[in-house]
Amino acid sequence: MNQFTFYNPVKLVFGKESLEQLNDMVKAYSNGNKVLLTYGGGSIKKTGLYDKVMEKLSDFEVFELAGIEPNPRVETVRKGVEIVKENAIDFIVAVGGGSVIDGTKLIAAASKYDGDAWDIVTRKAEVKDAVPFGTVLTLSATGSEMNSGSVITNWETNEKLGWGSPLVFPKFSLLNPEVLYTLPEHQTVNGIIDSMSHLLEQYFNEADNTEVQDQMISGVMKTVMKTGPVAVKEPENYEARETLMLSSTVALNGFLRLGYVGDWATHNLEHAVSAVYDIAHGAGLAILFPEWMRYVSKQSPARFVKFAEDVFNVEAALSDEEKINYAIDELQNFWTSLGAKQKLSDYGVKEEDLEVFADKTLIYGPFGNFYKLQREDILAIYKAAL
Amino acid sequence: MNQFTFYNPVKLVFGKESLEQLNDMVKAYSNGNKVLLTYGGGSIKKTGLYDKVMEKLSDFEVFELAGIEPNPRVETVRKGVEIVKENAIDFIVAVGGGSVIDGTKLIAAASKYDGDAWDIVTRKAEVKDAVPFGTVLTLSATGSEMNSGSVITNWETNEKLGWGSPLVFPKFSLLNPEVLYTLPEHQTVNGIIDSMSHLLEQYFNEADNTEVQDQMISGVMKTVMKTGPVAVKEPENYEARETLMLSSTVALNGFLRLGYVGDWATHNLEHAVSAVYDIAHGAGLAILFPEWMRYVSKQSPARFVKFAEDVFNVEAALSDEEKINYAIDELQNFWTSLGAKQKLSDYGVKEEDLEVFADKTLIYGPFGNFYKLQREDILAIYKAAL
Repeated sequence: MNQFTFYNPVKLVFGKESLEQLNDMVKAYSNGNKVLLTYGGGSIKKTGLYDKVMEKLSDFEVFELAGIEPNPRVETVRKGVEIVKENAIDFIVAVGGGSVIDGTKLIAAASKYDGDAWDIVTRKAEVKDAVPFGTVLTLSATGSEMNSGSVITNWETNEKLGWGSPLVFPKFSLLNPEVLYTLPEHQTVNGIIDSMSHLLEQYFNEADNTEVQDQMISGVMKTVMKTGPVAVKEPENYEARETLMLSSTVALNGFLRLGYVGDWATHNLEHAVSAVYDIAHGAGLAILFPEWMRYVSKQSPARFVKFAEDVFNVEAALSDEEKINYAIDELQNFWTSLGAKQKLSDYGVKEEDLEVFADKTLIYGPFGNFYKLQREDILAIYKAAL
Repeated sequence: MNQFTFYNPVKLVFGKESLEQLNDMVKAYSNGNKVLLTYGGGSIKKTGLYDKVMEKLSDFEVFELAGIEPNPRVETVRKGVEIVKENAIDFIVAVGGGSVIDGTKLIAAASKYDGDAWDIVTRKAEVKDAVPFGTVLTLSATGSEMNSGSVITNWETNEKLGWGSPLVFPKFSLLNPEVLYTLPEHQTVNGIIDSMSHLLEQYFNEADNTEVQDQMISGVMKTVMKTGPVAVKEPENYEARETLMLSSTVALNGFLRLGYVGDWATHNLEHAVSAVYDIAHGAGLAILFPEWMRYVSKQSPARFVKFAEDVFNVEAALSDEEKINYAIDELQNFWTSLGAKQKLSDYGVKEEDLEVFADKTLIYGPFGNFYKLQREDILAIYKAAL
C-alpha cells in the first residue's frame, strides 16, 4: 500500500435510540444556542421525524433551511450561508441523506469565508474554518455522514463537483435504522447499488499489497449482497436495515481506503449522464459499472480475477476469463434482480448523447486511478452501456 | 447489534516515511516545547531509532523516561508523572510497543490528577484531563497505538488491570513497518497470535446480527493467517510486515467492534497465568484459546459453526461438530506451525497452580460476555490446557 494518513473524528451513534442524544450532542459541540436546521423536500415532516428533532432542540433557537435538493445546488447553499451569517448561528443540524449533508458541509465552510461558496468547491478558496455541525441520517447510501467529502451542483456553470476538507467532518452522526422503513423501494435499491459501487471503486485501486483492505471490502460487499434483497422484500426488517445502514457508512468513511484513493472513473462516467438525464445516481451506476468492468478487465485482468475469487468464490477450475465474466454477470444480475435497469437507452439516452457525456467527463482530462480512461475508452464503455 | 457509539480521533500515519512527520505532529498538538520521551528496555538505542527520534525532536526540550516494562508497572508510571509535573511538560512521545504506550496513557492521565496514578486504574478517580501524547510504534500486537485502553500491573497489590478513557487516545501514531525487521522471531509470532486473539475475542460477542463485523473480522483473520508465516520466514519482507502491522492496529482500534464488547474471557484466563509464570501474553493465548473454544463450543455451538464457515471455509457436508473441531484444530495447528506451544505444562505449570489461577480470574466474579465462565468452567479449561 502507499503511505497514508487516516483520520476520522466523527462520533457515530447507531441504534434505535440514537436520536435521544441529539440535545446532549449539540450542547457538547456548540458554543451558543442558535442552531440552523437543514433538510430536504419535507419528507421528514410527513414521517414525524421533524417534530421529534424540533422537540430535542427545544433548548435552542432554531432557524431553518428547507429544500436542499437531491443534487444540492450552490444557490441553496448560499441561502444557508446567509442565514448563518445574519444570525450568528453556532451549530448546524442536518437531517437528511447524503445530499442534505453534502450541502450542509458547504454551508458550514462557506459561512466562515468572506467570498462566494462556489470558490470553495472550485478550490479557489482554502477552507480555514467551519461552523460545527452534526447529522441525523434519513437515507443510507453516500456515507457522507462519516466523511469529509461533498458533491455540489452549479447550474449556472453546468458543473457538478466534489470537494472536501478535514474541517467538514460532522461532529456527530445519529443513525437509527428504523427511519429507513418508509423509504420508497427504488431508494432502498439505489442505496444498495451506491454503497456497493463505493466498495468497488475502492477495491479497484492504484496500490499494491492491500490484502487487509481487500478482505474487509469483500466481506462488506458479500454482506450487502446477502442482506439487500431482505430489506427490499421486508422494508421493516430491522436487522436487514441495520446491516445495510452500517455497511453504507463503512463503505465510504475512509476506513477501507487505507493507502489508496480508489479508481472512481465510473462515478465520473455516471455524473456526466445524470447531469443531462434524470437518472438516479445508483441507477446509473448499476448500468455503467458492469460495462466499466468488462472493458477494463480486458486491459488489466489480474485484479478482476482476484475480485471474482474474493467476492464470488469462483471455482478454481475456471479460466481467468471465465472467472471474470462470471463475477461481472453475477454482479449485474444481482442488481437487475433488485429492479435496476441494464441499459442507458432504458432512460431515453441516445447514441448522439455519448459524445456529450464524454466531453463532460474529460473536463479535467483522462481519469481513473486504477485504469486511466482516454476518450476512446470512455466512448467504448458508454456504447456498451447504451 | 446493540446500540453503540464509535469514536476514534487518532491520526494514523502509516508507511516508511512516517517518522518524518514527528516534528510537525508534535508541534500541531503541543502547547509548548517540553516533551517527555518514554520508551522501554533500550532496544531503540541499538536499532538507531532513538537517535532518529531525538533528531526529529531537536526543536524541543526533551526529558526521558526509560525502562517501561513489558508489563508496565504503576511504580514506573509514577516516575513518569513526577517528571511531567516537575517540569510542566506539554506533550509525551511514546516510542515502543503496547506496554510503553499503555504506561504512557496512565502517565498522561495521572499527570493531570492530584492523587496516585493507581486510583485511575481502579476507577477510584475519574479521568478529567490528560497530557496530550503521540506514539512511534516499534512492535505490532496490542493495538494500543489506536485505542484508548491500557493494562497496568501493580506488584504491591498483585493486580494486573485494564482501564481506559476517551481522553487517552493518542493524538497521532506513526507506524513504519520497517521497524519490525529486527524483532526476534518469537515476538513476531506472539504479535500474530495476540492480534488474532483480539479478532477472536470480538468475533465471539454478545450481540445479534453482526454480519458486517463478522465478515470484516474474518477477512482480517484470514489475511493474518496467510501473511504471518511469510513474515516469520522473511523478517525483512516489507509487504508482509506492512500487512501484519495494519492488521494488528485494525484488530483492536474499535472499528471491528461496533455494537458489542466481545467475550474477553480468554484474556482474563491468560492474565492469571502470566501473572505467576513467565509466559508471554501471545504464547499463553495460543494455549488457552483453543481450549476455551473446545469447551464453550459444546455449550453454545451455533456461533462456532459460523466461525468455521466464515474463516475456514469448511465443507458444507460436514456435521456441525466436525466443522467446529476442524476449525479449532486448524487454528491451533496454525499457531503450532509458527512455534507456539500447546500446553501450559511446557512452561512448568503444575496441576496445583490451576486453583490459584482460577482465584485470580474470579476477583470480579464470573466473566466472559459471549459465555459466562463459572469456577468449574474455568478449571475445566485450565485442565484441558495443562
